[in-house]
Amino acid sequence: MVEIAADPTHPRYQSLLMRHRLEEAEKKGMLAGSALIAHGRGEAYDYLLGEQTIPSAMSATEQALAHLLAAQHPVISLNGNAVALAGKELLHLADRLGCPVEINIFYRTPERMDALIEHLSELKDAHSYDVEILGAQPDARIPGLEGPRANCVKRGIFDSDVLLVPLEDGDRCEALMAMGKTVLVIDLNPLSRTAQMASVTMVDELSRVVENMNTLMAADELPEFSNEYNNEHTLQDALDHIKNFLTARN
Amino acid sequence: MVEIAADPTHPRYQSLLMRHRLEEAEKKGMLAGSALIAHGRGEAYDYLLGEQTIPSAMSATEQALAHLLAAQHPVISLNGNAVALAGKELLHLADRLGCPVEINIFYRTPERMDALIEHLSELKDAHSYDVEILGAQPDARIPGLEGPRANCVKRGIFDSDVLLVPLEDGDRCEALMAMGKTVLVIDLNPLSRTAQMASVTMVDELSRVVENMNTLMAADELPEFSNEYNNEHTLQDALDHIKNFLTARN
Repeated sequence: MVEIAADPTHPRYQSLLMRHRLEEAEKKGMLAGSALIAHGRGEAYDYLLGEQTIPSAMSATEQALAHLLAAQHPVISLNGNAVALAGKELLHLADRLGCPVEINIFYRTPERMDALIEHLSELKDAHSYDVEILGAQPDARIPGLEGPRANCVKRGIFDSDVLLVPLEDGDRCEALMAMGKTVLVIDLNPLSRTAQMASVTMVDELSRVVENMNTLMAADELPEFSNEYNNEHTLQDALDHIKNFLTARN
Repeated sequence: MVEIAADPTHPRYQSLLMRHRLEEAEKKGMLAGSALIAHGRGEAYDYLLGEQTIPSAMSATEQALAHLLAAQHPVISLNGNAVALAGKELLHLADRLGCPVEINIFYRTPERMDALIEHLSELKDAHSYDVEILGAQPDARIPGLEGPRANCVKRGIFDSDVLLVPLEDGDRCEALMAMGKTVLVIDLNPLSRTAQMASVTMVDELSRVVENMNTLMAADELPEFSNEYNNEHTLQDALDHIKNFLTARN
């Protein structure tokens, strides 16, 4: 079992807290077999970024939030790790944005869907969030994908114009972009296909991104679009940051 | 479940095979909760190395094998991930080297120890390896460590002069070095404390290292010590390789 330091100022506190949340989620049947391995990959990239929100990631977060605020029909897509790591905080964000969340998982089984919906519903009730939780009854398919991973909800992901998809798979990111949507992703690997293809890529740890968005919303510091935003620059800056980290540490 | 490609030339074959082995090991109770996360971190660094044995890692592997061949009392220390990823191949190596293996895990429970010993014993019997499997009855402690993680076997790790410790924890690597041993580690993160402290660091994926060692042994191409070997150069070369990878990909 992961031991969480009692002191939130402990340098490993956040990292251990995230592991603890994943362990709890696993016990509830919310995660696929590959979920912990994927989290480990993220931990490695986060280490190389110095476990911090770098300035270019903060700019990307502001740009993503501006997209969500300006959207006609924004939706937040959630997978198992996103629900495990920041389920409550993502519902809080959806509540403030007035948008639905949709559970959309790569390895879809009825048991995992039920576990995720139950967990989110408990959080929603406990905190009185006014958020519709979609995903249980898919009635549309994302074009270009095969099998259960194409399933989605017509009035959710399918009809969305702006979509926040934390921790998305490369194939599905590509398919969603091909539908003409504005796709906002959170991905710690700036070289991943998802990171490279998205409209806006936040190269940052999921729970930090959601906290940053909630802080911006709470402070009424609502960001506006920057027409000069360039996602290639965001990715290049993250790569440069990692290279500098590797140089400075040796 | 992980689907393994039937074709070993498939680009993801090795990576998916390793995941499959971890899933099997988890079902048998061989792994701690943090094992899959640790593997994911390794996957990320291996990706940044191009999922290959870089030349400096091959030189480190030759140097490590030369140490094992020249040792008075070599021992291979095994944890859950090492047994899961390359249990058979590590027993094969120990058989050829004529040295014992010792199970030495960070999160020691009787259940995990039993599962690991049973799995290794089955492999040993199935392949008629002449290898002593130590670890079940620790009768010594590694100085400087607290709790169950300090436990070891007197005529195993404690009395060893050269120790191969794949995937070692930083604290234990430091404690083993402080005992005056030659410590050979396999660690995909060239910046980790383990990598930085060891006598020889193979910045490479575990199953590739063991395969390389077994191939060298089978071909009777037994490497000799290089007095010019410099572990700092090994680490620097791996960092340079990652930086070049990050540059070339963008």
